[in-house]
Amino acid sequence: MEANLSLMYVISLFSVLIAFAFAAYLFLWVRRQKSTNARINEVAALIKEGANTFMRKEYRVLSIFAGIAAVIIFLLLPSPVWTGHPGRNLSMAAAYVAGTALSAIAGKIGILVATNANARAAEGARQGVRPAFLIGFRGGAVMGLAVVGFSLLGVCGVLWLAGDSSILLGFSFGASSLALFAKAGGGIFTKTADVSADLTGKVELGIPEDDPRNPAVIADNVGDNVGDVAGMGADLFDSNVAAMTSALVIAQSLGGQANTAMVFCYAALGLIASIIGIATARIDKGGSPTRALNASTYVTTGLFIVLTALATLIFHDFSWRIWGASTVGLLVGVIIGITTDYFTDDSKPIVQKVARASRSGSAFTVLSGVSYGFVSALPAMAGIAISALTAYRLCAPMGSDYAMFGIAMAAVGMLSIVGMIISNDAYGPIVDNARGLAEMGGLGEKTIRVADELDSAGNTVKAVTKGFAIGAAGLTVISLLGAYLSEVNEALMAAGKAVITGFDIMDPSVFFGVLIGAAIPAVFSAMLMLGVDKNAQRMVAEIHRQFSSIPGLREGHTGAKPEYDRCIDIATSGALMELIPAGLAAIVATVVVGFAGGPLAIGGFLLGNIVSGLLLALFMSNAGGLWDNAKKYVEAGHEGGKGSKAHKAAVVGDTVGDPFKDTAGPSINTQITVVSLVASLMSGLFAAWSLLG
Amino acid sequence: MEANLSLMYVISLFSVLIAFAFAAYLFLWVRRQKSTNARINEVAALIKEGANTFMRKEYRVLSIFAGIAAVIIFLLLPSPVWTGHPGRNLSMAAAYVAGTALSAIAGKIGILVATNANARAAEGARQGVRPAFLIGFRGGAVMGLAVVGFSLLGVCGVLWLAGDSSILLGFSFGASSLALFAKAGGGIFTKTADVSADLTGKVELGIPEDDPRNPAVIADNVGDNVGDVAGMGADLFDSNVAAMTSALVIAQSLGGQANTAMVFCYAALGLIASIIGIATARIDKGGSPTRALNASTYVTTGLFIVLTALATLIFHDFSWRIWGASTVGLLVGVIIGITTDYFTDDSKPIVQKVARASRSGSAFTVLSGVSYGFVSALPAMAGIAISALTAYRLCAPMGSDYAMFGIAMAAVGMLSIVGMIISNDAYGPIVDNARGLAEMGGLGEKTIRVADELDSAGNTVKAVTKGFAIGAAGLTVISLLGAYLSEVNEALMAAGKAVITGFDIMDPSVFFGVLIGAAIPAVFSAMLMLGVDKNAQRMVAEIHRQFSSIPGLREGHTGAKPEYDRCIDIATSGALMELIPAGLAAIVATVVVGFAGGPLAIGGFLLGNIVSGLLLALFMSNAGGLWDNAKKYVEAGHEGGKGSKAHKAAVVGDTVGDPFKDTAGPSINTQITVVSLVASLMSGLFAAWSLLG
Repeated sequence: MEANLSLMYVISLFSVLIAFAFAAYLFLWVRRQKSTNARINEVAALIKEGANTFMRKEYRVLSIFAGIAAVIIFLLLPSPVWTGHPGRNLSMAAAYVAGTALSAIAGKIGILVATNANARAAEGARQGVRPAFLIGFRGGAVMGLAVVGFSLLGVCGVLWLAGDSSILLGFSFGASSLALFAKAGGGIFTKTADVSADLTGKVELGIPEDDPRNPAVIADNVGDNVGDVAGMGADLFDSNVAAMTSALVIAQSLGGQANTAMVFCYAALGLIASIIGIATARIDKGGSPTRALNASTYVTTGLFIVLTALATLIFHDFSWRIWGASTVGLLVGVIIGITTDYFTDDSKPIVQKVARASRSGSAFTVLSGVSYGFVSALPAMAGIAISALTAYRLCAPMGSDYAMFGIAMAAVGMLSIVGMIISNDAYGPIVDNARGLAEMGGLGEKTIRVADELDSAGNTVKAVTKGFAIGAAGLTVISLLGAYLSEVNEALMAAGKAVITGFDIMDPSVFFGVLIGAAIPAVFSAMLMLGVDKNAQRMVAEIHRQFSSIPGLREGHTGAKPEYDRCIDIATSGALMELIPAGLAAIVATVVVGFAGGPLAIGGFLLGNIVSGLLLALFMSNAGGLWDNAKKYVEAGHEGGKGSKAHKAAVVGDTVGDPFKDTAGPSINTQITVVSLVASLMSGLFAAWSLLG
Repeated sequence: MEANLSLMYVISLFSVLIAFAFAAYLFLWVRRQKSTNARINEVAALIKEGANTFMRKEYRVLSIFAGIAAVIIFLLLPSPVWTGHPGRNLSMAAAYVAGTALSAIAGKIGILVATNANARAAEGARQGVRPAFLIGFRGGAVMGLAVVGFSLLGVCGVLWLAGDSSILLGFSFGASSLALFAKAGGGIFTKTADVSADLTGKVELGIPEDDPRNPAVIADNVGDNVGDVAGMGADLFDSNVAAMTSALVIAQSLGGQANTAMVFCYAALGLIASIIGIATARIDKGGSPTRALNASTYVTTGLFIVLTALATLIFHDFSWRIWGASTVGLLVGVIIGITTDYFTDDSKPIVQKVARASRSGSAFTVLSGVSYGFVSALPAMAGIAISALTAYRLCAPMGSDYAMFGIAMAAVGMLSIVGMIISNDAYGPIVDNARGLAEMGGLGEKTIRVADELDSAGNTVKAVTKGFAIGAAGLTVISLLGAYLSEVNEALMAAGKAVITGFDIMDPSVFFGVLIGAAIPAVFSAMLMLGVDKNAQRMVAEIHRQFSSIPGLREGHTGAKPEYDRCIDIATSGALMELIPAGLAAIVATVVVGFAGGPLAIGGFLLGNIVSGLLLALFMSNAGGLWDNAKKYVEAGHEGGKGSKAHKAAVVGDTVGDPFKDTAGPSINTQITVVSLVASLMSGLFAAWSLLG
């Protein structure tokens, strides 16, 4: 049978519909679970309100930003509007707005379900691990299905309406813009609140973690939602859209319907595999939640491989080589996840070594964590390198353009199980919140222990997810480099200039770009981390003000209530204020290098950016994860346990690691994607005007 | 007048002779200064003996390593000995041995004069800043002149004897091998001793820094010499040789005598400018030592620019474009030094901000230091990028091969003042030692204050030197990439294969190499840092053993002497033991990537290695320097001063920074050069046999 694009549109939309219907069912199921504890409901309402405040404010700032960007896009992209094609520019601007809007809606849904599921999971934990696990997991799955559904819907819709894959770059850039706000902004928010709450509560006053007297405690719980649920969701929405976009841009340049059809077919099958994986997720009585989460990931992986093989059997114009590339991408993604686990799981030797080093003091916690963080980057980078090379080699016999398509399809393959990945990831903050609520609601030791077990599974799986997200972004941006090349050559041809055949390192413009591009992720992450620092200082000052001006608050008198919303306000506006310069710096650097060095310099710039970005993202995420777990390992009674010298040192490591793993590290992905898309979008301008190009 | 290669050989050898004569004069001058304090002489003798023990052992291990390497080189390089040219292989092996030997001799001389100058500088400090400054500076200058003299002598001699610039790669690789041992081994030694002395002395027993009861105190002072004098000397010997080598390899491929003559002419003029700069260095009564060190650097810089302009006027076959490239390289080197100073000088805002952040605890010291360290990489990388691009563009009108020659000459220009730079740098450990000796010899508060002032100037200038060394290495390895391309093409042509025109990022083999290459500096530096950690644990155990088994040691009874040499032994053998796996890992990775991916993958590998190596080296050196100075700033009475909470936090930052700036950061340079040379040397083998090439 021959593949037909219209059929694939239908299959894609059908799978999106199933995903939405299933998500709605899961959402209603979560809502049906009981939530009767008044104290918990009260706190949960505060968290929900706080999260909504942040989202509202974030989306407001974002819509101003997006409005300005849309106008600029309309005026300039893909080519200046006064040179001819206003309709095309309008489509591009509309696609951009659609990209931000769909991602925003998915994020909103994620927050909605997460802030409903947390209290119910806390109650569920009274009955044991099983019911609480299901509430957490199904809550997360709503987010996963929404993200994948909306991304596939958007890509289908834009391509169908515009009929031109270049316009998809606008949609993808919209998704990236939102991800930058959601991930980096959410990251600054969550760490501002976390650090401030710890500093004033645990350190200065000696009160426990989730003590309701602390004015920052709600902001801290809100942070888990806006950083880990909305932020991670937007990040993977962005990666997923970018992977599909670059595959489609290359597929269209190859000509014929079959390749384009294949991208949609694979994406739809990935979504279907995720739905089945989510539906079959279960945990036996007394079973381990970590194993349950991993099992459903493996089910989804296996299903995707089998389903795509069947599709390749059925549609004889689908190539087995491309199937191979996609399968390699997926398997390498899983392997990257497993090696990340090796470096960050506290049952493995690395975390234990860092915990042991903490006995000599915090400098050794930091040094050993930095060292193992550095080492941890190698297997993942080698994995990305090998999968890109294998995909290319597999598909090269079909022609050199097909080889690049192979890499793009490896990224699509790796991201095929993204629905499952987001479900696992969003599970984390839900049960983390549930643990806090169980403590604040006084549900007793046994329930808290259950919540702890669920939370710990969330942490383990989260490290795997992050490794996976970085790996996927790595493969995606490689194929975006291919998309950039084809975009810039289109522009050069239109301008009657010589086409670029590649980016030779020995060309000094390329080399120039590489060096500058490599420095950008370092500067970007530094700006985010310094932003957390500045913002936390503002928040600590506010907490001190409340403790000294609200009578009875410090002593915990009834009726003395902290002004939680002031803290949320500070975290919110500070996060947005600190984020914008960092995001703009990356974009401005791209524009400056482009207009100074021309298209070749930008090719180098993208490479440098990708390579150092991957290295730093892996280093920071893994080092942060291992410090976190080393602290937990010590708190579980090893190396002297809580209160020991090793514990104090491990806490320092964890505090350093927090902005590493939750603010800077995972935002670098987004920075890379944003820069790659800006380069592709502006390639026409760089090709037309540049100082040295 | 036309340039003549023989004439340039004569001028070069003449300038080497002057340098050696002047060095001998300075050495004798230092020896003539009095050194009468018996206690100081006793301790100084222990330091000298310790340094010699390390050097002996290091050179013994190195000679085994070099012997094996020489045999492998004889068998395999430049092409397997059984394929034809045993004479060429023998020259290559001999050049390799000569490279290690000349660098070793220069290092030995440096240690000899430094361990003589330290005690005399301490005595000189009793008379005031001026005499002590001169002793420190002239002692350092002996090392500077020896390093530059021997490197120029070696390059002249090898090229004159072999008549083939490929053989120079062997010489350069010899210099790199030694630098790897000296810099990384010395770096592990010095930080093992430093960290162990601090942990057991300052932290556990609460005794002052240079207290003679501490069994590690002599090892600590030895470390300053072997790490900063011998290590930095070997590093810059290596960079200087590599810069000349790559310029000469390209010059010979361009044909004609003029270009080769120009390289020697510039190198000789650089040496002469340094001699004059050293000879005219002076400090007024009450003048600032920092200003005096900087002034002589500027004098040397100006002189070099003027002298090379004169040479270009006289020899009409010298090109003004090449002169421009060399001048740009030198000026950018100076600018990189100045920006490094901005990030690490405690009179500038960055250090003060990190000191202020320390008030919130050590996690904030670490986070802000990491952040500013990241930011500090941008200006230096942009500087390297801009100088490479400018040099290329300047020389491109002469032909594209000339453009690469321009980059190589920019590196030669940047390194022209290396004699001055080493003098400034070796000054640091001499006056640092002098400070320790003044304390141990009981020379009184006033003398210690004078020594402190000299020491602080050493620290400031050291940061500048490191930035300069990294910048120079950056430009050098870019031109080594050019040298690699010409080597590999020679091999491909000999094998009857198609020539490579460049390394296109879009080629998956290149991309594969880039990703793996970028991870190597991270793994290499992690291994060194973990090596310091393991080694320090062994040494701390030994110190504890001595305190518990030597009666009266802890209490400081007369006659109770610690066994200093046991600590020196541990630091020595541990350093060599920990260094070898790290060095081998980098070399093995190159070989594996080469045989797996072929010449294209190696091109990418080198690029990835250079880019991430520069980024990490700049980050680690600058972050380490700024933590060190932030601690000193707090100790000078700011943010609460000594003993305050900020001070404790700043000490943690400094401990983290120590292996950053003295072990890992500066060793990355050498790792990059070693890998680049291994690639060039083995290019014939990779071209002949590779899995995917």
